[in-house]
Amino acid sequence: MCELLRINTDRGVMLSDGKSRFSINGKPIYHFVGTSTFSEYTVVHVGCVAKINPAAPLDKVCILSCGISTGLGATLNVAKPQKGSTVAIFGLGAVGLAAAEGARIAGASRIIGVDVNPRRFEEAKRFGCTEFVNSKCSDKPVQEVIVAMTKGGVDRSVECTGNIDAMISAFECVHDGWGVAVLVGVPNKDAEFRTHPMNFLNERTLKGTFFGNYKPRSDLPSVVDKYMKKELELEKFITHSLSFSEINKAFEYMLNGDSLRCIIHMEG
Amino acid sequence: MCELLRINTDRGVMLSDGKSRFSINGKPIYHFVGTSTFSEYTVVHVGCVAKINPAAPLDKVCILSCGISTGLGATLNVAKPQKGSTVAIFGLGAVGLAAAEGARIAGASRIIGVDVNPRRFEEAKRFGCTEFVNSKCSDKPVQEVIVAMTKGGVDRSVECTGNIDAMISAFECVHDGWGVAVLVGVPNKDAEFRTHPMNFLNERTLKGTFFGNYKPRSDLPSVVDKYMKKELELEKFITHSLSFSEINKAFEYMLNGDSLRCIIHMEG
Repeated sequence: MCELLRINTDRGVMLSDGKSRFSINGKPIYHFVGTSTFSEYTVVHVGCVAKINPAAPLDKVCILSCGISTGLGATLNVAKPQKGSTVAIFGLGAVGLAAAEGARIAGASRIIGVDVNPRRFEEAKRFGCTEFVNSKCSDKPVQEVIVAMTKGGVDRSVECTGNIDAMISAFECVHDGWGVAVLVGVPNKDAEFRTHPMNFLNERTLKGTFFGNYKPRSDLPSVVDKYMKKELELEKFITHSLSFSEINKAFEYMLNGDSLRCIIHMEG
Repeated sequence: MCELLRINTDRGVMLSDGKSRFSINGKPIYHFVGTSTFSEYTVVHVGCVAKINPAAPLDKVCILSCGISTGLGATLNVAKPQKGSTVAIFGLGAVGLAAAEGARIAGASRIIGVDVNPRRFEEAKRFGCTEFVNSKCSDKPVQEVIVAMTKGGVDRSVECTGNIDAMISAFECVHDGWGVAVLVGVPNKDAEFRTHPMNFLNERTLKGTFFGNYKPRSDLPSVVDKYMKKELELEKFITHSLSFSEINKAFEYMLNGDSLRCIIHMEG
């Protein structure tokens, strides 16, 4: 979280001299979130580079660069469910499925997936989800539905949508006394988190995480090793492989909720 | 936090038969918060009784029954500041001073006391406070003042006022990446905690606590032992000792902020 390297989509230039390293016909092209990986060659600050196992297949481990690591880390590093516990995952996109996978790896016995799109439920079972709540199909707030389902609330919840109502529900559905809710989704800039403070005094905890609390340079290599040792399956997160020339089709898949997961693997 | 014994000021009766054990001239007198200790004899549920060291002086350890334990536990059991860390305490009443004392015991190197009443600052030094912020004396929100004083925010904050603005300030004054804020004060029933969710995503944690996370029956005896071993000084929390006939004077002292701490020790 240091000021030096904090991802800053507005910066677009190198830190040392405030200039871009790319140009076309003399016109500068700005850097994108510190990496600019949609190019054959790139220039990045040394702090943005992590050395991984050279045997790792780049066309698989590339998906660890953001969403998957974030979801996985949100559960394994931040929510830390105990074996046998109950976990709710809000949003079953790539990040949420990775969060569910984390809960499965941690040994949670009930993993409740929450989404507005019921077509996501079937596939989410492969990521450990045992039950589902369609947050659009109830007269009651989804937190009340979950508290009733679990007789008091879940042990852990992980919010992976960025929707402010889902954030509030994720917090209010955890159990008094020990419940921990983790916010992962990036909110709208005008969003406001609101809750009655009594919900905290009842000994609930609310945390947020950035990149699943992994420190990219020091921690990403170990996540890659987890994949190499087959403790973590990445293939099931990859729904499409498209060449660079089809990048606009990739964005179409991403925008279309039916693609289930917005992870697009780029070839070429 | 179990449903069975949760303090319930409205209940006023014993759990077994829903009846009161007190009466005057045949009219029932209801129980008060499960203990009814303003009487010479009382009847309480076994779950509300803790057995303490019989050598402990009751006229000192009685103050562990609520505020002091809550403040102390909020810091020692929930905020858990590391040695050398920086802690902000919001509200320097009895609970806040106990929270500061907890930070001192934990080895915090800077303890910033925040209050609207500057007369509380001098005495708060005895409880470990090293610096003070008068939250009424700045054009800027108090969280901004504290972030500037500490170059980024405090490691821990403990909110002991029940004022919703203080709760928000206590959360927003902790450092990105590792800061933990603990809410202790009991809020107004219409209060709403509001903050931008990005404040969570920057890896801050917000928790609340009830009775400082001490479990009264199993943990209170050890706090009494801490006093008996002189690891905890209770005398400095006691500003007045009044007999039962002067109880209304005691309430006057409590309502008058000048009494510094609202702990009144009852004799007789």
